[in-house]
Amino acid sequence: MKGIFITLEGPDGSGKSTIMKKLTHYFKDKNIDFIGTREPGGTEIGEDIRNIILDKKNKNMAAETEALLYAASRGQHVHEKILPALKMGKIVLCERFILSSLAYQGVGRGLGIEEVRMINDFAIKGIRPDLTLFFHVDPSLTLDRKTKRNEGDRLEKEGTEFHKEVYRGYMELLKKYPENIKIIDASKTIEEVFNQSICHIEKVLKNQRGVIV
Amino acid sequence: MKGIFITLEGPDGSGKSTIMKKLTHYFKDKNIDFIGTREPGGTEIGEDIRNIILDKKNKNMAAETEALLYAASRGQHVHEKILPALKMGKIVLCERFILSSLAYQGVGRGLGIEEVRMINDFAIKGIRPDLTLFFHVDPSLTLDRKTKRNEGDRLEKEGTEFHKEVYRGYMELLKKYPENIKIIDASKTIEEVFNQSICHIEKVLKNQRGVIV
Repeated sequence: MKGIFITLEGPDGSGKSTIMKKLTHYFKDKNIDFIGTREPGGTEIGEDIRNIILDKKNKNMAAETEALLYAASRGQHVHEKILPALKMGKIVLCERFILSSLAYQGVGRGLGIEEVRMINDFAIKGIRPDLTLFFHVDPSLTLDRKTKRNEGDRLEKEGTEFHKEVYRGYMELLKKYPENIKIIDASKTIEEVFNQSICHIEKVLKNQRGVIV
Repeated sequence: MKGIFITLEGPDGSGKSTIMKKLTHYFKDKNIDFIGTREPGGTEIGEDIRNIILDKKNKNMAAETEALLYAASRGQHVHEKILPALKMGKIVLCERFILSSLAYQGVGRGLGIEEVRMINDFAIKGIRPDLTLFFHVDPSLTLDRKTKRNEGDRLEKEGTEFHKEVYRGYMELLKKYPENIKIIDASKTIEEVFNQSICHIEKVLKNQRGVIV
């Protein structure tokens, strides 16, 4: 049986983690063989890299270094965890993947979408998600949510202008790569957002495995 | 006054560190404004990355991840330390730079010279050394030296075959990029190796600054 690779993408505060948890319960209840993972991190080496990336003391990290560290962590994640799981026929649910780097480093940091894609292609040798769920919310709402929480790592602590650029980046990417990316209206209730997500996932499972879960 | 960027390259055990120390004393005695630095590392963020790369527990690090971490560390090094020093007109002496990545990851790990050059070009935005001193010794001799020491980090602990591949990589690179790389016969006495190095450095200083130090 072929593995299926599903990624959850969207700006900070768009509710990815909440839906990730609900999907985890859903797959467990259905006895579907899956793993849930996240970026940056997902492996021991990746977590060490994640700590460097998100550490608030590393304020003067060069944008290029940030992008390369994300790609390094992703390379390890793919080789050590994602590819082996897919080869075993599992479903892989992953919070954040390459689209985040294209939006945050490619556009937010101004390094260029193609340049950031190039270092990621080096890292992951062409693996692509079968389905990407993009959690869309109005940026004013997500920035608001984050401000209310009054916390955050080095990336989350970036100013409003940066996060607006990231949002603009995501919108550009949705136009640029419309294949396999499904837009979820994440301004709805959790239950509605979850149902939209499941609807897309079931379509992919049906197409690839011929079953309705 | 224009800064001058000098790198010291060569396999493990070729005597780079010893000559680096002697060059440091030489420049100090002559009151020449310089900094001495090394890779991987050279900055606080770079040292954190270095620890992940060289940690013996990280045995299953993907080759792609290793190459991207070296490039990430180098990017930080160039932006935070090397470029500012060069802009201030200093001489920058650096132990290991891009040539090491091309030999160790490009050839030793089999990732390809051009592929590894590409991620490094992303990291350092085209900065090139004014002079590279390559410390050449017969690989059987360096492998011997290292074995006698009976120590080493994750890269140094790689087997003889890997280090032979790295040596082959260096030989290929010397042919591919002969400009600005000067080959030092590092099998000679320390004093002779030092004198060969100074001879090349003085030529560059004379050409670029019109003075003999």
